[in-house]
Amino acid sequence: MGEIERRLAERELVLPAVFAAPPGMRMTFDRVRIDGTVAYVSGHGPMDGSRPLMVGKVGDPLAGDWLSQEAGYEAARLTALSVLASLKHELGELDRVTGWLRLLGFVNVAPGFTATPPVINGFSDLILELWGDRGRHARSAIGVAELPYGIPVEVEAVVRVDGR
Amino acid sequence: MGEIERRLAERELVLPAVFAAPPGMRMTFDRVRIDGTVAYVSGHGPMDGSRPLMVGKVGDPLAGDWLSQEAGYEAARLTALSVLASLKHELGELDRVTGWLRLLGFVNVAPGFTATPPVINGFSDLILELWGDRGRHARSAIGVAELPYGIPVEVEAVVRVDGR
Amino acid sequence: MGEIERRLAERELVLPAVFAAPPGMRMTFDRVRIDGTVAYVSGHGPMDGSRPLMVGKVGDPLAGDWLSQEAGYEAARLTALSVLASLKHELGELDRVTGWLRLLGFVNVAPGFTATPPVINGFSDLILELWGDRGRHARSAIGVAELPYGIPVEVEAVVRVDGR
Repeated sequence: MGEIERRLAERELVLPAVFAAPPGMRMTFDRVRIDGTVAYVSGHGPMDGSRPLMVGKVGDPLAGDWLSQEAGYEAARLTALSVLASLKHELGELDRVTGWLRLLGFVNVAPGFTATPPVINGFSDLILELWGDRGRHARSAIGVAELPYGIPVEVEAVVRVDGR
Repeated sequence: MGEIERRLAERELVLPAVFAAPPGMRMTFDRVRIDGTVAYVSGHGPMDGSRPLMVGKVGDPLAGDWLSQEAGYEAARLTALSVLASLKHELGELDRVTGWLRLLGFVNVAPGFTATPPVINGFSDLILELWGDRGRHARSAIGVAELPYGIPVEVEAVVRVDGR
Repeated sequence: MGEIERRLAERELVLPAVFAAPPGMRMTFDRVRIDGTVAYVSGHGPMDGSRPLMVGKVGDPLAGDWLSQEAGYEAARLTALSVLASLKHELGELDRVTGWLRLLGFVNVAPGFTATPPVINGFSDLILELWGDRGRHARSAIGVAELPYGIPVEVEAVVRVDGR
């Protein structure tokens, strides 16, 4: 077992099934596209295979039927686990990810919800916990109108991988 | 004639005029920025020169004055043709694109429209038809509030080009 | 003093304090992530340290309490200055940025505001003024539902830096 997977196990974190298109949708893109020692990771959400683990917009739960900021944070953490499942599937082991470069995070926002960085922190925190300094990355966190299947968070990434 | 252009001709697909800013707008960016063997392609829409071929938001046509998902798919396919026109203009011939790496697709959504991946499939499908396995790419498909000039779809790309 | 900073001084432009998270928010990402000779710049807004210099959505001021397109342009120019502050902080001097590759610009739009490219021109124009041809870049300009802290503009960038 590699170092990253040991750290996942220490935290009792289990990777979900690899992201797949929901029934009736064709998946015309690759989860991960490797180009030399750079891997481009497609936008992922809090999915277990083709099943969304959370749906809904993030906002003030007192003002409407919205997910709280804390639930959004959890969605972003689950999104990171889905990305790790795709990277493990593609690379064989997660230790082959030698550095994180860039995240682009989208939050499915209710009107007026602007605390998008604390939501995407759920993704960044897990990466930093697992990779330490090699997990440090540039990032944007944007509030958007709609996300696929109604998921609350979507994140894409660029990472460096060993050239094996 | 190169291989990719032969495939376009077989499909009776004609590239539009190269994307340009509409009258009264200054274009302060490059359609394609080449850096070594990587080309960064600016966000394109379904344009013929400076003329949008489609405008409007994608949603349920029964619920409002929206474009259907199928019309959105067609807009994404037209967007791919506009990107190809820019790449041909910049590179001389499309065979110089040796691999597709990453797409970021934005759909101009009506409220509640979440089927953004099937819309952006209109772009991905054409790339895969033309480039085969070398067209495989990572991708995100996001629903946004507004797009330039009211176009229904915008896609940016990162591709690998030969170093000529 | 380097060439770029000489040009800033000629224009009487002063860089703001380096972007930081507002009180109560944790910053879990790096402003700039350098990977070899490429630097990934996180999404920035018109910030002076942790203080937003402008907030609000861009739209028609006659139709609501919105910022005008011209105010949006100014916000994008201030955003560029915040990015330059981060790059100077990270690199020591701005002359080490040898080329601009790609910008992704988000505008916090009021309903119906589609003139996002002229807004993001405020960023692109300053880069081209300062770097000349080496400032030329690919770009997208998207209208989004919400941005962090209510800022009107956010831009992320990929630039080339010398390998020092």
